Amino acid sequence: MAGICGTDLEQLRGYMGYAGVPGHEFVGEVIESADGALMGRRVVGEINAGCGVCATCRAGLARHCPTRTVLGILGRDGAFADYLCLPDVNLKPVPDQLSDHIAVFTEPLAAALEIFSQTTIAASDRIAILGDGRLGAMVGLAMAARGLHAVVGGHHKEKLELLARMGLTVEAQAGLRPGFDVVVDCTGSAAGIARGLALVRPRGKLILKTTVAAYTDLNLASIVINEIALLGSRCGEFAPAIEMLAAGRIDPRPLIADILSLDQGLSAFELAATPAAFKVLLSVT
Amino acid sequence: MAGICGTDLEQLRGYMGYAGVPGHEFVGEVIESADGALMGRRVVGEINAGCGVCATCRAGLARHCPTRTVLGILGRDGAFADYLCLPDVNLKPVPDQLSDHIAVFTEPLAAALEIFSQTTIAASDRIAILGDGRLGAMVGLAMAARGLHAVVGGHHKEKLELLARMGLTVEAQAGLRPGFDVVVDCTGSAAGIARGLALVRPRGKLILKTTVAAYTDLNLASIVINEIALLGSRCGEFAPAIEMLAAGRIDPRPLIADILSLDQGLSAFELAATPAAFKVLLSVT
Repeated sequence: MAGICGTDLEQLRGYMGYAGVPGHEFVGEVIESADGALMGRRVVGEINAGCGVCATCRAGLARHCPTRTVLGILGRDGAFADYLCLPDVNLKPVPDQLSDHIAVFTEPLAAALEIFSQTTIAASDRIAILGDGRLGAMVGLAMAARGLHAVVGGHHKEKLELLARMGLTVEAQAGLRPGFDVVVDCTGSAAGIARGLALVRPRGKLILKTTVAAYTDLNLASIVINEIALLGSRCGEFAPAIEMLAAGRIDPRPLIADILSLDQGLSAFELAATPAAFKVLLSVT
Repeated sequence: MAGICGTDLEQLRGYMGYAGVPGHEFVGEVIESADGALMGRRVVGEINAGCGVCATCRAGLARHCPTRTVLGILGRDGAFADYLCLPDVNLKPVPDQLSDHIAVFTEPLAAALEIFSQTTIAASDRIAILGDGRLGAMVGLAMAARGLHAVVGGHHKEKLELLARMGLTVEAQAGLRPGFDVVVDCTGSAAGIARGLALVRPRGKLILKTTVAAYTDLNLASIVINEIALLGSRCGEFAPAIEMLAAGRIDPRPLIADILSLDQGLSAFELAATPAAFKVLLSVT
């Protein structure tokens, strides 16, 4: 089972110049491995495959290896297929109590939790999450699971209503007022950074989760004058995400808009591109 | 005595839309104050005048007060004049052993040291300072005084030679190779950020000291993919700068290109705009 992510949609617009099989959020079964302990196991997989020998890999940051491949994104065919290949070291067994429908959210949740490996956020911090899409939802759920109080600001009434039913604080993005200690840009739009800069307080943090193909105009002066810390944030380690899902601290299943078979892939992409859909899953079974 | 800064030159191009008396680096004598202890004292002055009562001011960050005035930059006439006005709380007495020629560097040194109030830099970090101008020189001297090993990358042979004579490690900017843990953009150019992003390692820090009127095209994807921390940095507290100058850990006097009288102000600005000149001082005595 595999999930369609905003990055997959961005690739259709040229992001990373990728032309292989897309898909990087998956749960699957190991059918071939030199590691006997992995054979037949249900696994999720870290998407960055480093060389394993460079200084970056040895520092535990294989996901920044300069010669890495990235599942479905860079030099390695992805998960929207019957089979995919990843190094053994990337594969993480899924606890039995986690259904495929939950385990498939491991990768996006790991990406959301990556924020906490990069910076400290205090329980007293006022936090705004810009964007009510897949990324904003995962970051919102991750913040809530860690006891942080964030408001998700979005443009889509239906999505905000669903997130509110899942226990998140939501608001129309236009209603957010400046002065947040932390703003997380999950807009998926190059314009998100300007909106974030307008909302974060002086000396606050603006965390960028948006990856888009586009360049954007940046007001350098406001970053310097207000001494903003702008923090790019991408993939995260899987262990904390699996642990959080297994502990039941997050249940992402209400985000599933539909589950389609692989040969309905084009329809699935069309559905994933509609404003109302959170997560569209593809299943090979 | 007052120093001409890159910001003063930027103002001529429209930065901050300021139209008053410029100048914000100065050393002077108090001739009027309700505080008897200040009368007649030689002082330097913190340039941001906050309201003193808002939450930001009460948190000790008057330099980010939303209703602040800024000497020679925002709503408050500056130091290129016979007299200037600042609140008593902004004035810091200068130790007797510090000559005017050194004390006038307090403000730019405080701005350089501000970096250390915002982030931690390790002695083992590989540091590049982009720009061999006034700002790059001050940041380079501040780094060296704190025992850090930085290379100043610039385009001006004469300036680099002077900085090398002052004990700094210098290099032609084109000779710098990617992989720095910390890069400080002191280019004074909107293009500096792209150069910095190309030189900083994944998960490294890019500190922006450049304040320019311009917007710049920013490659959002590279910040997110490489998880760069982009840190805007502006003015700093004066106490650490005065202390460092008084202890003789920095002697900025070789940076003085010339000292002109106030009625030679236009010539002074022309000189300050030439590539070879570091610091041009204006003197009213």
